[in-house]
Amino acid sequence: MADLRSDTVTRPTKGMRTAMARAAVGDDVFGDDPTVNALEAHVAELFGHEAALFAPSGTMANQIALQLVVPPGGELLAGADAHVVTYELGAAAMLGGISTRTWPSDGAALDAERIAAMIRPAGFPSVPTAAIAVEQTHNLGGGGVVPLGTLQDLRVAADKHGIALHCDGARIWHAHIADGVTLAEYGALFDTLSVCLSKGLGAPVGSLIVGSRERIAKARVIRKRMGGGMRQAGILAAAGRYALDHHLQRLTEDHERARQIAEALAPFGVVDPEKVRTNLIPLDLSKHDLSAPALAAAAAERGVLIAAMLPQVARLVTHLDLDEAGVDQAIDVLTDLLA
Amino acid sequence: MADLRSDTVTRPTKGMRTAMARAAVGDDVFGDDPTVNALEAHVAELFGHEAALFAPSGTMANQIALQLVVPPGGELLAGADAHVVTYELGAAAMLGGISTRTWPSDGAALDAERIAAMIRPAGFPSVPTAAIAVEQTHNLGGGGVVPLGTLQDLRVAADKHGIALHCDGARIWHAHIADGVTLAEYGALFDTLSVCLSKGLGAPVGSLIVGSRERIAKARVIRKRMGGGMRQAGILAAAGRYALDHHLQRLTEDHERARQIAEALAPFGVVDPEKVRTNLIPLDLSKHDLSAPALAAAAAERGVLIAAMLPQVARLVTHLDLDEAGVDQAIDVLTDLLA
Amino acid sequence: MADLRSDTVTRPTKGMRTAMARAAVGDDVFGDDPTVNALEAHVAELFGHEAALFAPSGTMANQIALQLVVPPGGELLAGADAHVVTYELGAAAMLGGISTRTWPSDGAALDAERIAAMIRPAGFPSVPTAAIAVEQTHNLGGGGVVPLGTLQDLRVAADKHGIALHCDGARIWHAHIADGVTLAEYGALFDTLSVCLSKGLGAPVGSLIVGSRERIAKARVIRKRMGGGMRQAGILAAAGRYALDHHLQRLTEDHERARQIAEALAPFGVVDPEKVRTNLIPLDLSKHDLSAPALAAAAAERGVLIAAMLPQVARLVTHLDLDEAGVDQAIDVLTDLLA
Amino acid sequence: MADLRSDTVTRPTKGMRTAMARAAVGDDVFGDDPTVNALEAHVAELFGHEAALFAPSGTMANQIALQLVVPPGGELLAGADAHVVTYELGAAAMLGGISTRTWPSDGAALDAERIAAMIRPAGFPSVPTAAIAVEQTHNLGGGGVVPLGTLQDLRVAADKHGIALHCDGARIWHAHIADGVTLAEYGALFDTLSVCLSKGLGAPVGSLIVGSRERIAKARVIRKRMGGGMRQAGILAAAGRYALDHHLQRLTEDHERARQIAEALAPFGVVDPEKVRTNLIPLDLSKHDLSAPALAAAAAERGVLIAAMLPQVARLVTHLDLDEAGVDQAIDVLTDLLA
Repeated sequence: MADLRSDTVTRPTKGMRTAMARAAVGDDVFGDDPTVNALEAHVAELFGHEAALFAPSGTMANQIALQLVVPPGGELLAGADAHVVTYELGAAAMLGGISTRTWPSDGAALDAERIAAMIRPAGFPSVPTAAIAVEQTHNLGGGGVVPLGTLQDLRVAADKHGIALHCDGARIWHAHIADGVTLAEYGALFDTLSVCLSKGLGAPVGSLIVGSRERIAKARVIRKRMGGGMRQAGILAAAGRYALDHHLQRLTEDHERARQIAEALAPFGVVDPEKVRTNLIPLDLSKHDLSAPALAAAAAERGVLIAAMLPQVARLVTHLDLDEAGVDQAIDVLTDLLA
Repeated sequence: MADLRSDTVTRPTKGMRTAMARAAVGDDVFGDDPTVNALEAHVAELFGHEAALFAPSGTMANQIALQLVVPPGGELLAGADAHVVTYELGAAAMLGGISTRTWPSDGAALDAERIAAMIRPAGFPSVPTAAIAVEQTHNLGGGGVVPLGTLQDLRVAADKHGIALHCDGARIWHAHIADGVTLAEYGALFDTLSVCLSKGLGAPVGSLIVGSRERIAKARVIRKRMGGGMRQAGILAAAGRYALDHHLQRLTEDHERARQIAEALAPFGVVDPEKVRTNLIPLDLSKHDLSAPALAAAAAERGVLIAAMLPQVARLVTHLDLDEAGVDQAIDVLTDLLA
Repeated sequence: MADLRSDTVTRPTKGMRTAMARAAVGDDVFGDDPTVNALEAHVAELFGHEAALFAPSGTMANQIALQLVVPPGGELLAGADAHVVTYELGAAAMLGGISTRTWPSDGAALDAERIAAMIRPAGFPSVPTAAIAVEQTHNLGGGGVVPLGTLQDLRVAADKHGIALHCDGARIWHAHIADGVTLAEYGALFDTLSVCLSKGLGAPVGSLIVGSRERIAKARVIRKRMGGGMRQAGILAAAGRYALDHHLQRLTEDHERARQIAEALAPFGVVDPEKVRTNLIPLDLSKHDLSAPALAAAAAERGVLIAAMLPQVARLVTHLDLDEAGVDQAIDVLTDLLA
Repeated sequence: MADLRSDTVTRPTKGMRTAMARAAVGDDVFGDDPTVNALEAHVAELFGHEAALFAPSGTMANQIALQLVVPPGGELLAGADAHVVTYELGAAAMLGGISTRTWPSDGAALDAERIAAMIRPAGFPSVPTAAIAVEQTHNLGGGGVVPLGTLQDLRVAADKHGIALHCDGARIWHAHIADGVTLAEYGALFDTLSVCLSKGLGAPVGSLIVGSRERIAKARVIRKRMGGGMRQAGILAAAGRYALDHHLQRLTEDHERARQIAEALAPFGVVDPEKVRTNLIPLDLSKHDLSAPALAAAAAERGVLIAAMLPQVARLVTHLDLDEAGVDQAIDVLTDLLA
């Protein structure tokens, strides 16, 4: 099977398994796991922040960060297609009491001015805005990269109103590779970031929240309450460190393969290859008489797995475990089905 | 002072006070208040629904209704400027665990097709949409009236996806008067409505949730939990009934006066009189070098009270307690200040 | 019908209705209602606190106060039979995210030492205790009065651990009358109190939260979110003020009548008259082959209404609207049914 | 260092590391991880239930289970010292909206009759009880084992009132070993159980929720919302399966060593060895002029780590990584410090 559903499907490589097998571990709830501690320090440093905290998933990393920057009853601005709004099952509202007001998503093509105009300062009868969340790269936006200048404009707006800026950086690595912006440059723009090791980087499990020492201390309490306090998490952290050390630069390959697929499918009017800048290929089926689940089912029968994200939006993802043959197979099957 | 901050500032009339003084009452938490029971039955009938429930405020009526139609962790679609999103202090998220995804508000000029396209059906990894909320008339939309056809289109979309449609009808009375649509016609389109007696209708306190018998039975439990169970609420219900019987038709006066003010202020580029169809006059100060709080403060010094809703949005409201002299004074002072 | 279900069933007297009919009012959400403002100032002064806030119910007053003293995720200690734990439908947890750990209730016979031993200070892996709530008089504890000395001991314990002490004082007036402790003496012991005007005092609607200026400012925001912001609430506040001025001292009558009923029913082993110190008479039916709902139904058929609080606990309440004849009727019917 | 703080500190053995290194894995969020699926099926079968779900921690397993059996606003009965009430940072209330009413904990010596008497059925104005949670073995109760007969009595009470019974079985393995009750016998008594692989069994990370197929399907959604959806979790599941296969029977050793320590410390009046039936040794320091943190600090200086659970309660735990020498060292140091 060629599995293009997500870059979360990657299985640990041999080297990564060895790193896990040899990891020095301790009880991370007590702060005693040396491999976790080292990973947290390393990731914090990569982004130029004081501290970081390991978490079992990207959803938990995002939700902990949101609870750090928005109080219960407070407001978060985010895109209508943001992962934190769409794919985390209402966690911000249900678990954090966080109210979301959304801008109409055009993926990574954020309109910083429009977003800034949505901020509602304290002192009015309206609920004051506490934070803005952006997503880099943008999942439902087809892996698009938010330009550095846009992020800088948002930082200025956030500072002007004294509110926080959070980055859902599950795939920020891809933005770094695609645009050549350093992780530290990104880090400098945000109060909190979540980053994920188990998507493009290929680790089996793990995300981190990045921020100030004070915020991360609070994050530790929130993580315990959310059920994210793991014990000998060093096993997972070792894989994560290995992924960071060995799989970051190779993301270019995934980006090239994604572009290759997009170009092959472009003639069917489902995707604009110019917009495929990282490892996600969104397929817009609205002009075809075909639902995303139907396309996914048909492709699966022929050995190609893709994701139905919304009724008429399917998604293909390139990753560490998808080789040339898989790319070819995907192109063959999908061109056939879309024809 | 000419008080144009809100139609909530109206004080009970003599006749209304007499009605309150004579009201037969009982313990409404036990269901024993005859005046409350009669009001609830009357309002349910006006809207063609089975039942209704009295509540101490429009915010509580809305929040109870939202909890009826969206489970914790579920999603509500609403306008970014909706009262339930903007002016209820994050209650939907914090108290009901309800996630909100918003469309860019153009007040009452809803784009039903766009809204329908935002609905996310169950069966995908995204949080499924449980309900849509619309506001009639639209507060931050300057008292605009959502056309009946638009509401009908939303009903069709809601039915298609098996989701609920809620109406924040705090000022639905004004829509009824402005467009001549009957309350029952409106009622037929919604699963739940909240309606308010203490805004344009002039009662001191009270809103109602309108819906099916089954939903209203649940609403009673939610109301108790929210702290909205009042005892001899018949005192308030008597005023509400008086307001319904005596102050509904006279809303035309308020609408005419609002238009008069809007026309007087139109030359300053702050309001389009064509859009002022009910009793709210929004002032867009973005082209003036003047913040809403500054304008409000300056006007207050000269005996005219207006509301600063957002940094550059002020609002004037006509109502039962604002007479010709008040209108003239408001026009004089504001034309002076905007000049 | 002799209605002994609750002191909440009282209907406003003629004098109270006149006070309501004449009340000067304004928009209390804007802080403009003179009668509400005067009542808040008066009640704050009675308890020796800086400020107070009017709310539509005792449940809302309690829940606002709890949200003031316990953060989401924090812990409240209370009796297992406390109104805030038992009769507010889980509001503390669901709306405020407040965790409750309870002591086994023996009504008003609190064991301050035992409660103090339950406090869990910060610095341990356990959730730290943020506040203790006591109830004066104690509803399920049969209207018992917590001795002043016990409350002082709890204050000492709370101070020692830097936590807050809240009083659910829905019927604190009865404790004041029964024990001769001044309201200011009580007030001095608590960080926050809720007091109710629509129970023994006989007003139709209304409770207040009492506390520091800073806390009450926050309470105003919470009240708005909870849906407790009412407009011309002065109508209700006028009744409340009338109740305070005219119905406080007369509570002795209710206490005497309650004792009279308890003595008449004592021979049936359902109540100890020595413990009936205020206006509540709990009936413990566990030794009778009779459920509380069955007793309530049988009594209702003979014109006497009583409350079934729990499967084997019924409750009788004396109040302003229950006269000698009602007392006699209740005694006749209940002695008959229990025989 | 002899680490007796918790059985969570155990590091994976060589065999366990090999099992992890070789584990077949897939994306568990998509249900594709064979090792996770096999572990879930195995654990479900052990307890005689239909299904199970892997989770990153005992806290998350408990909280998911509680959300399955208690709706927001509903009530859970638990011991005042229960882990779900004390050591999960208010998660039940804050994340699940669950209200807790607690019985005074005497550890595992539950009084089933007393607990049954606390159940409040629907149909009264009180919040209805939805579930009871018990803990087997009981952590703050010093690892005590709740007798099978008591659990059976609770099952009868739960059935009588139509409510659910949850078992926090983080250390149910120890109860099984100590009392010889089979896991299936325990399983038959509960609607939901949480069981932990990373405590006494020695796996690095992982707990499971056990229940009906229908409940576990819902649990999957809740787990995603809580941030517990991990990807190639098979790495962890492999360790868990190894732990179950190799470390269950050896718990007798831990129990014997715990008894040995308790007997050595008994002369100092801090523990009753008769009550030490599994691997936890609670030290009650209330008769010593010594706080738990002080004792822990002094012991740590001499190479023995113990846990300060509460101001005057310390805890020692025996486990897989604590050998004879560690036991001797702990006894030497603590007898010295307590003398």
